Amino acid sequence: MNAIILSIGDELVLGQTVDTNSAWISQQLAAVGCGVNAHLTVGDDQPAIEQAMLESVGRCDVLIVTGGIGPTEDDLTRQALAAVMNAPLELNQEWSHRLEAFFRKVGRPMPESNRIQAMIPRGATPIDNPNGTAAGIDVSYKSGDQKTVCRIFVMPGVPKEMKAMFAATVLPFVKESGGGAAIVSRTLHTFGTGESWVAEKLGDLMKRGRNPSVGTTVSQGIVSVRINSRFSSCDEAQRELETTTEACRAALGDLVFGADDDTLAAIVGASLASSRQTVSTAESCTGGLLAKMLTDVAGSSAYFTQGWVTYSNKSKYERLGVPTDVINVYGAVSEHVVEHMARSARRLAKADFALSISGVAGPTGGSAQKPVGTVCIALASQADENLHGDARYAASAVAARSFTFPGDREMIRDRAAKMALTMLRFHLLGKPLPF
Amino acid sequence: MNAIILSIGDELVLGQTVDTNSAWISQQLAAVGCGVNAHLTVGDDQPAIEQAMLESVGRCDVLIVTGGIGPTEDDLTRQALAAVMNAPLELNQEWSHRLEAFFRKVGRPMPESNRIQAMIPRGATPIDNPNGTAAGIDVSYKSGDQKTVCRIFVMPGVPKEMKAMFAATVLPFVKESGGGAAIVSRTLHTFGTGESWVAEKLGDLMKRGRNPSVGTTVSQGIVSVRINSRFSSCDEAQRELETTTEACRAALGDLVFGADDDTLAAIVGASLASSRQTVSTAESCTGGLLAKMLTDVAGSSAYFTQGWVTYSNKSKYERLGVPTDVINVYGAVSEHVVEHMARSARRLAKADFALSISGVAGPTGGSAQKPVGTVCIALASQADENLHGDARYAASAVAARSFTFPGDREMIRDRAAKMALTMLRFHLLGKPLPF
Repeated sequence: MNAIILSIGDELVLGQTVDTNSAWISQQLAAVGCGVNAHLTVGDDQPAIEQAMLESVGRCDVLIVTGGIGPTEDDLTRQALAAVMNAPLELNQEWSHRLEAFFRKVGRPMPESNRIQAMIPRGATPIDNPNGTAAGIDVSYKSGDQKTVCRIFVMPGVPKEMKAMFAATVLPFVKESGGGAAIVSRTLHTFGTGESWVAEKLGDLMKRGRNPSVGTTVSQGIVSVRINSRFSSCDEAQRELETTTEACRAALGDLVFGADDDTLAAIVGASLASSRQTVSTAESCTGGLLAKMLTDVAGSSAYFTQGWVTYSNKSKYERLGVPTDVINVYGAVSEHVVEHMARSARRLAKADFALSISGVAGPTGGSAQKPVGTVCIALASQADENLHGDARYAASAVAARSFTFPGDREMIRDRAAKMALTMLRFHLLGKPLPF
Repeated sequence: MNAIILSIGDELVLGQTVDTNSAWISQQLAAVGCGVNAHLTVGDDQPAIEQAMLESVGRCDVLIVTGGIGPTEDDLTRQALAAVMNAPLELNQEWSHRLEAFFRKVGRPMPESNRIQAMIPRGATPIDNPNGTAAGIDVSYKSGDQKTVCRIFVMPGVPKEMKAMFAATVLPFVKESGGGAAIVSRTLHTFGTGESWVAEKLGDLMKRGRNPSVGTTVSQGIVSVRINSRFSSCDEAQRELETTTEACRAALGDLVFGADDDTLAAIVGASLASSRQTVSTAESCTGGLLAKMLTDVAGSSAYFTQGWVTYSNKSKYERLGVPTDVINVYGAVSEHVVEHMARSARRLAKADFALSISGVAGPTGGSAQKPVGTVCIALASQADENLHGDARYAASAVAARSFTFPGDREMIRDRAAKMALTMLRFHLLGKPLPF
């Protein structure tokens, strides 16, 4: 089974938007053994879209189209598809009702132009879009002489909407129809060391030609290990995947924080929840990002109740009692200051742990001693296991560390928040930070 | 003059690498008035590359090919080009010497496999590669009947190498041959209404075929208006761009918060900074995201000093003095509660403004009365212009609003934080929120 991916949009051919959808879709298809013959991108131009569709249907089993099904005049994908199918566009009553319900819910009148989003070519089926107003379109294309048969899926270009629809509709179809080899995959995630260090630890596991294959990728500071197991039987593919996954875990040890969709915050959160412990935050340079990451996780109220963003020096004193002298002598970016912040956050929030961060996120504010990227992080925990009740929070044991993170403001803030989570993760494991 | 961009590589069709080259090349071409008909991507497969080349040469004036000219066995672009041209590959002596010199310089013996990188089809010209070992290829393709004429440029897929070669060789050719058409662009950003509403306001400005063209796109709740102006003279293109931009701004009014790289937080921040005013935050469901957005902006310490993440009901009382009765009677997600939160945050932070957010981010926690997506937001500002000193912060005027945002947890949190910024933006404009 093989596919062509057709992306539509002036913003793509003008280079104003980088097409990330095609790569994502390709990855998903590869994982279930469906080859991708080509990616094709054309602008919001109906004849060009029609030509691209007509040429593609003869060259693949599945044509996956994204973009051009918004409510505006420059959205022409549904019209092009109708022309290619030689079928009229018809209002789908069910989706029309969904649209009306959607606009009722958000309390706005539905603009007449939105109704086009419930129109699909006769003979086609709408694809549910849980995150937006454009229905997708699912159709089996047959040429006049019946020689060409191709399944066409049309989805919005908005990545979030497309991904949900792809997972719910396209992927199950491709999986069922794929026959052939089974490919199963797993991704292990690490944070805190570089890609080459991870590769060194993995050693021969990364040898080219090995099956299951082992490769590394990096995204937002997370070094991930991707394991692809490709065998003719599903059982064998799964068994070999487990064996190689175990070998990778053995090589990397506690550096692996999770697999597949796991995030650092979710893993730390699950560990806190299972031990009925709580964490609070006190942030300077990350400005709320650490609390945001913790609360990205649904159900985080079980272990996170409150946090402080003390961005100015004065607020560090007013909210968390960091002595002005300490700030003046050691600077706001110092282990002394984050230690005070963490202690106070833990005491005030009556939390089992508190994480604090202060750093130079840049682009300005760096000095020779504390260049941009310098970040101090502290973790406060219970000082004495024998204390009970509120006395537990009065005194804390505090571990502070200083780091220098590379990159721009966004990267430095991201890495700082992830390192804070990592410090707590290793503490919960009862192990020292390995770097 | 128009172009097709052909990218070659298994890593692209497998989705392991996102193709950023095509967008970059498109931007460069657009800036000198060369339209891009299509992007096309195929794997390291010689027949597929040949087919893509043959189909493309008849449909554009310039075919720009990247990738597949490395030294390894899976690099097949030069072979495909030779086959399409029906010409043998020949060793280019000059580039061969360059390769030998390169390897002498880095003190390594030259692997025999690298010699292929000095091979180009008879009749073609090498393109200098200052950053790598693969020569590019420049050739004027003519079909047998001389009817099809197309200039083909082949460059490496490595962005750094490609970009240098493009600037030195391809861009000057396109500029000279292009007849001087220029495309200049601008993007206006709005938040708070749907794409169809924006399109309705723009009306005839979005008519297809209009020049400058006007189209809409949506990303993370931001509805953007893209204006592309294409004229033979650069001056005219710029002048017409300004005229259409003004017409779009007139149609959308204050809904437009910024242009091009502007973010909501940066625009609100600039407005606060220029009036020397400050803002504080008190967040429940957004869990720090609003403070994070404000501090995404370098220099935000000028107007943001501190914020609270009061996730639990208890912390809303302990930190911000929200009476437990109020929470019990109206619920944590209520205008009463956010009003209290905003007042307290403003008073404690001694800020000119405070924004507070409490909502049901989901996926659980919704009820019939307050379904997932229900979010209350309040803005506290100075109650009495005649008060001075700390008395200014003792009493606040507060405006609270309730919204229902669609989507999942991440979307609801994102839209809530952006709506809070939007409420402050309109307050700073001295205008009511238009929705």
